[in-house]
Amino acid sequence: MDEFKFIQSITPKYYHQSSIITGIGDDAAIIRQQQSDTVIAMDTMVESVHFSEKTTSPYHIGYRALAANISDIAAMGGKVTAYLVSIVIPKRWDEEKIRDIYRGMNDLAAHFQMDLIGGDTVSGSQLTISITVIGSVKNDQARYRGDAKPGDYIFVTGTLGDSACGLYVLLHGEREEQDEFKYFINRHQMPWPRISFIQECQQIKRMALNDVSDGIANEANEIAEASQLLLELDYEKIPVHQDLRKFPKHQQYNWSLSGGEDFELIGTVPAADWEILEKAAERTKTSITKIGEVKDIKEKNGSAWIYHENQYRKLERSGYTHLKG
Amino acid sequence: MDEFKFIQSITPKYYHQSSIITGIGDDAAIIRQQQSDTVIAMDTMVESVHFSEKTTSPYHIGYRALAANISDIAAMGGKVTAYLVSIVIPKRWDEEKIRDIYRGMNDLAAHFQMDLIGGDTVSGSQLTISITVIGSVKNDQARYRGDAKPGDYIFVTGTLGDSACGLYVLLHGEREEQDEFKYFINRHQMPWPRISFIQECQQIKRMALNDVSDGIANEANEIAEASQLLLELDYEKIPVHQDLRKFPKHQQYNWSLSGGEDFELIGTVPAADWEILEKAAERTKTSITKIGEVKDIKEKNGSAWIYHENQYRKLERSGYTHLKG
Repeated sequence: MDEFKFIQSITPKYYHQSSIITGIGDDAAIIRQQQSDTVIAMDTMVESVHFSEKTTSPYHIGYRALAANISDIAAMGGKVTAYLVSIVIPKRWDEEKIRDIYRGMNDLAAHFQMDLIGGDTVSGSQLTISITVIGSVKNDQARYRGDAKPGDYIFVTGTLGDSACGLYVLLHGEREEQDEFKYFINRHQMPWPRISFIQECQQIKRMALNDVSDGIANEANEIAEASQLLLELDYEKIPVHQDLRKFPKHQQYNWSLSGGEDFELIGTVPAADWEILEKAAERTKTSITKIGEVKDIKEKNGSAWIYHENQYRKLERSGYTHLKG
Repeated sequence: MDEFKFIQSITPKYYHQSSIITGIGDDAAIIRQQQSDTVIAMDTMVESVHFSEKTTSPYHIGYRALAANISDIAAMGGKVTAYLVSIVIPKRWDEEKIRDIYRGMNDLAAHFQMDLIGGDTVSGSQLTISITVIGSVKNDQARYRGDAKPGDYIFVTGTLGDSACGLYVLLHGEREEQDEFKYFINRHQMPWPRISFIQECQQIKRMALNDVSDGIANEANEIAEASQLLLELDYEKIPVHQDLRKFPKHQQYNWSLSGGEDFELIGTVPAADWEILEKAAERTKTSITKIGEVKDIKEKNGSAWIYHENQYRKLERSGYTHLKG
């Protein structure tokens, strides 16, 4: 594979963002963002750890990797500007497949008018994609996990458990089932980061925010911990797609709370701002659901609890404390 | 390995840079840089491709990986602010060694007052370190490869070929030789990016600049191509350490022109600015050498030539057009 030609082939012909002063082609990229702060996140996905060609085509591998990063910017209340991609390419991955990975990223990036401005291509034994995404947020408009207050409503966008269900169907489903549950497969392969919705919420002064990457059991706990308050959820209110009800109850439970990778947003807002939130959801055709409230109960602060089968249980984090396998 | 504890252990207790509004701990980091542009570079190093534990300790693996990235910011005329690290960790690398990698990065970062603000830790089969470095450059003070003009003097900082010689001694030298040539080993393991020097050159209005990562045979050609001019070098003037003369002539030639990884700077400045450059070098205790001149010769523009053994030869790029192996 000719690296020089390959880089030429992925170099944008023009940049969407006027803030990009230099993109690919020199030692580093240069961005000028005025009156706003720069938001930066970096994520790495490894073949056979985070994805597999069995369930995810190269195009979707690229798409999902970038979606996960964009979602991190949404979770800070930002919008996206640009991204850099470092890719480790094993010999058995031919150039066509690698191009497909970049096509998947590029198609998603085009929706958000974001530009590829740098990165690295190197050889190695395991396909690894590291993405750095750069966004912007107006000065002092960033959304932190630690900003919840007692009395806040807890909301989540979209439906949960879709991605985990889609992966399950891809791994275990027969052809027929895969057709029947195509919705979930699509949600797994092409998640949609909630940038537009969160941009419409700028009128709301304070909001705690997180994105659903590991499952809300985890993210609700992160908000609870950062805010040192109790997040009380109601399992009955967790929004799931109607077809998820066709699966056994324990799977619904696990997928919707701990499945992760839906890349929806979970947040808390003052009750008085609920109407603004609903209008933002309407304008951006986003479904939102109130799933609980923030409380201040000393012995429970710092954790999330969930009402399920007539009792409150502590909502344990899922698959968090060990190195992601 | 407990990821949560590990991240806690590498999270800075405080940040050097006041521009860092949020570091590790939320979905993304936030930086506020006023009156300056943001410079961003991303680089990936893979075990047994870019480094080996045989020649490089975990501490030095971390140090070098970050040094390479800082050097990219220097090559744009910038100073450094922060960095993000994504690391793929194989099972056989224990936590102590991983900590040593971060120690190496941290020690170098401390010199430049730069802060670790994010990244990712994941498992995989091959140790892979991706670093994103964020810097700043005053508005319109960036140094591009395409800014050379006819008559410019070509300069290089420090001495060249040191790193390649150091690697050679590490791989082939006996114990005694390794002691004798410790200087080169040190230069290989702990290169020093030229941030301070380039910051002292701000008075110079125009400068083409590149850093010596692949060898100046490559970087001189990059400047020549971007500027569409001829870079004419004189081999006799290429600065090398006196002890490099103890090695065979062909090794001196290859190492100094194509060895790479010295992370020195090569650039071009108007002849009238040479004195300013010399003063900047003096103030920052940097050696600089004039190694040639920029010319405008239609049939040679876009390439670099070198005077060696009484004739001018075209200086071929080295190991560039194929995926870095």
